[in-house]
Amino acid sequence: MPAVTSVKSFLRPLSESCLFSGWLRRFSHSSLVCDCEMSFSIYLPPQASQGRVPVLYWLPGFACSDADFIRGSGAARIASELGMAIVVCDTSPRGDQVADSSSPTLGLGGGFYLNASREPWARHYKMYDYIVSELPQLINMNFPVNPLLTAIAGHSMGGHGALVAALRDPSRYKSVSAFSPILSPSHVGWGVQAFTEYLGDERQRWKSYDATELLTVTTAKLPMLIDQGGSDEHLLSQLTPAPFLKAAEKAAYPVEYRSQFGYDHSEYFVASFIEDHLRFHAKALGLRT
Amino acid sequence: MPAVTSVKSFLRPLSESCLFSGWLRRFSHSSLVCDCEMSFSIYLPPQASQGRVPVLYWLPGFACSDADFIRGSGAARIASELGMAIVVCDTSPRGDQVADSSSPTLGLGGGFYLNASREPWARHYKMYDYIVSELPQLINMNFPVNPLLTAIAGHSMGGHGALVAALRDPSRYKSVSAFSPILSPSHVGWGVQAFTEYLGDERQRWKSYDATELLTVTTAKLPMLIDQGGSDEHLLSQLTPAPFLKAAEKAAYPVEYRSQFGYDHSEYFVASFIEDHLRFHAKALGLRT
Repeated sequence: MPAVTSVKSFLRPLSESCLFSGWLRRFSHSSLVCDCEMSFSIYLPPQASQGRVPVLYWLPGFACSDADFIRGSGAARIASELGMAIVVCDTSPRGDQVADSSSPTLGLGGGFYLNASREPWARHYKMYDYIVSELPQLINMNFPVNPLLTAIAGHSMGGHGALVAALRDPSRYKSVSAFSPILSPSHVGWGVQAFTEYLGDERQRWKSYDATELLTVTTAKLPMLIDQGGSDEHLLSQLTPAPFLKAAEKAAYPVEYRSQFGYDHSEYFVASFIEDHLRFHAKALGLRT
Repeated sequence: MPAVTSVKSFLRPLSESCLFSGWLRRFSHSSLVCDCEMSFSIYLPPQASQGRVPVLYWLPGFACSDADFIRGSGAARIASELGMAIVVCDTSPRGDQVADSSSPTLGLGGGFYLNASREPWARHYKMYDYIVSELPQLINMNFPVNPLLTAIAGHSMGGHGALVAALRDPSRYKSVSAFSPILSPSHVGWGVQAFTEYLGDERQRWKSYDATELLTVTTAKLPMLIDQGGSDEHLLSQLTPAPFLKAAEKAAYPVEYRSQFGYDHSEYFVASFIEDHLRFHAKALGLRT
């Protein structure tokens, strides 16, 4: 990706609110890699006024934006206690010029956190580089976060994105966690549709965005926590834990995997267990839990 | 209001999700007093599967609906711990046949929790009777809540509504609390507009929906907690704590009033302090806090 040299002037404030003695701020900026205006939200806990704090990147699921997670999850309460910043990204490039689809799991709101190589997607849909590289550079230059203490997490499509980032670029993160992640996208409807559209038919390319495939080649082993809802209607058709867990066992990758009885695919599932996830990351980030 | 005899068959389930080991359920039903279809949400904590639990009624602010509060506030986490049900009502009657206004603080989403006496509002805008009488009857008949252990709370217009209900009908509630309430509606823009439209010019009528006026005539004294945001842009123009606090002092009404430095009028303010409010109500309801 191109070097980002002077970004401060590109940050356009959208809103800010006091929340649990910290601040939730929303900005937009010109993304070089996505070639469009992108927005993000950042929660800065009260400890950030005293110095740099560890930071968790949260990747939302289909049809969400950066504005949803902090509101719906209750995460700020725990982040404020722990002294952890949370950055929430958007789920796709945005704007009139950006290609879209009539499918709810493709196009706007469904960027799948990958770098598209096929048109009409390739010009703007570079979400992998955006999440892993451009956005962290921007955050590190503009906010009191510690770039060496970074974790990543997400929900559904965002859980897939977080796992892929942690498995492909483990040196960037201290820990990874996911709610309801799509674990073997190459073999389920949502993933096959997205990979075919964004990457083309050549299945070899798909492997670099498939957590189950990446488990077989990754070397570093990060602390990893996964929660799946026992009553999630997509569990067996789209999320498919079995092949992932089998690959993890074969690779001796230490996954803390939990099936939560009665919970569905919604944000209520995330809200119910986000405290566990933030404390899991806090431990890996060296914070007092 | 007319007697509600057989309501079970009128409850139409809209959604349900597991949340903090309890259940969030949303229903619609035919309201007799509002003469239209109304919706409400109820959070039942896990303790409700063992027997009747105390219940808090939450009255949302302008432009919100019953679907917003549980999602945005984090209240279910604490309700689950305490063993408290939460019922969230809508902010006005709804439907194509219901009168509306171009003002964002009037008409749909802005019912002001009063019984309108002027047309075109009088037919459907009977929110006071709905909140204080019809909805609790429906809840008590259909869910495992203890009708004798009821509390009421709300935000902004809903804070006004909660205080008015507690001051007019104190025998129905054990405690009342409010975030950012409109405390003297008869003397501020939002209130004057609503009262003129819904009730007419005769100011004597307004007094029964004005918390500051009601303080001078109420006999029972409920535990009352009020939080106002120190950076709330509406504090001095619409919420006006000073006359209310003066009236409370004169009436020797024990109000726990807190000004929270830095907080605005948003749901983030509510989320930041909802735990205090639920524990305040739990104490009055005899729950272990």
